[in-house]
Amino acid sequence: MLDFFFEFASTYSYPAAMRIDEVARRAGVAVRWRPFLLGPIFKAQGLETSPFNIYTTKGRYMWRDLARTCEELGLPFRRPEPFPQNGLLAARVAHVGFEQDWGEAFCRAVYQAEFGHGQQIGEESVIRELLVGLGFTPDPILARAHAPEIKDRLRATTEEAERLGIFGAPSFVVNGELFWGNDRLEQALRYAQRVHSST
Amino acid sequence: MLDFFFEFASTYSYPAAMRIDEVARRAGVAVRWRPFLLGPIFKAQGLETSPFNIYTTKGRYMWRDLARTCEELGLPFRRPEPFPQNGLLAARVAHVGFEQDWGEAFCRAVYQAEFGHGQQIGEESVIRELLVGLGFTPDPILARAHAPEIKDRLRATTEEAERLGIFGAPSFVVNGELFWGNDRLEQALRYAQRVHSST
Repeated sequence: MLDFFFEFASTYSYPAAMRIDEVARRAGVAVRWRPFLLGPIFKAQGLETSPFNIYTTKGRYMWRDLARTCEELGLPFRRPEPFPQNGLLAARVAHVGFEQDWGEAFCRAVYQAEFGHGQQIGEESVIRELLVGLGFTPDPILARAHAPEIKDRLRATTEEAERLGIFGAPSFVVNGELFWGNDRLEQALRYAQRVHSST
Repeated sequence: MLDFFFEFASTYSYPAAMRIDEVARRAGVAVRWRPFLLGPIFKAQGLETSPFNIYTTKGRYMWRDLARTCEELGLPFRRPEPFPQNGLLAARVAHVGFEQDWGEAFCRAVYQAEFGHGQQIGEESVIRELLVGLGFTPDPILARAHAPEIKDRLRATTEEAERLGIFGAPSFVVNGELFWGNDRLEQALRYAQRVHSST
């Protein structure tokens, strides 16, 4: 079992979300999708926005590196403005999706809209369109997204991420062992295979 | 041709330095070793020490991740105290080595001492021992390391790194295209192969 912690505003969570199903299936490792919020974790470290906006040279590089990563994976890429987008509503809706059976499809749809087409995923209208595109009636889902249980579940996931030492996204956790970054997914899966074969 | 920018205080420059020769040779790409200093670049970004010391949660993760990376590569690992070490003298001596033919061997010896055995590579006595271990008489080399030409060469390499948009180490530059991190070495080599085959 591998826990996949991701945040909708996070750039490198996009390629991770788009490819994790296939690489994990090939590795024979089950994945649990864990949408959380980076904002409170950044704030606790004294960061008021994405580190990529604070350290602009690193930020410029990140966009170039992400474009190359998407190109190698055959994923469309378009930078959303502004960055970071507000991922709160998407994260709440995702938690609704994971109560049912459409969480993963919704998450991939959000990432494609945001980083494949540069859409404003913080806007409720965009989330509505994505839900319609998946064949759903948005109203009851959005109502459920604002229920206290769902808000609590997102908060609890974020608190768990912080306890696990997570400071960025995507992050993968296997047996308490933390792996950070899309480029660590394969290593996390190898670790999961070793843990499982020794238990 | 791939330019390999590295700093002796940089943790991930250790695995990169230890493996770059073999992977670049297999890829058929020539490598130019470029020792530079990160300190002035961090200062220009308002950072007074390593980001891993400023963001302690990320720093804790980095040491764990580095230990795993070294384990996968079969490299010894021991964390040097304090971190970061002062890499100035080692960088100057490395520039002397690249005037002659022993630069790469010296760089690998420094990284092994620092991150393989936790030695204080900022101490002149440690650098002397490494030079003796390579079969050299340290005095003339250290005298040359303090010559104005060598100091200027290190300063010029650091300024070039800054102009290229480098903000961390190791960094790989092919045809002005920047790749940051030990985990981007293979991608940088693929890029170099494409550039060369199209010229």
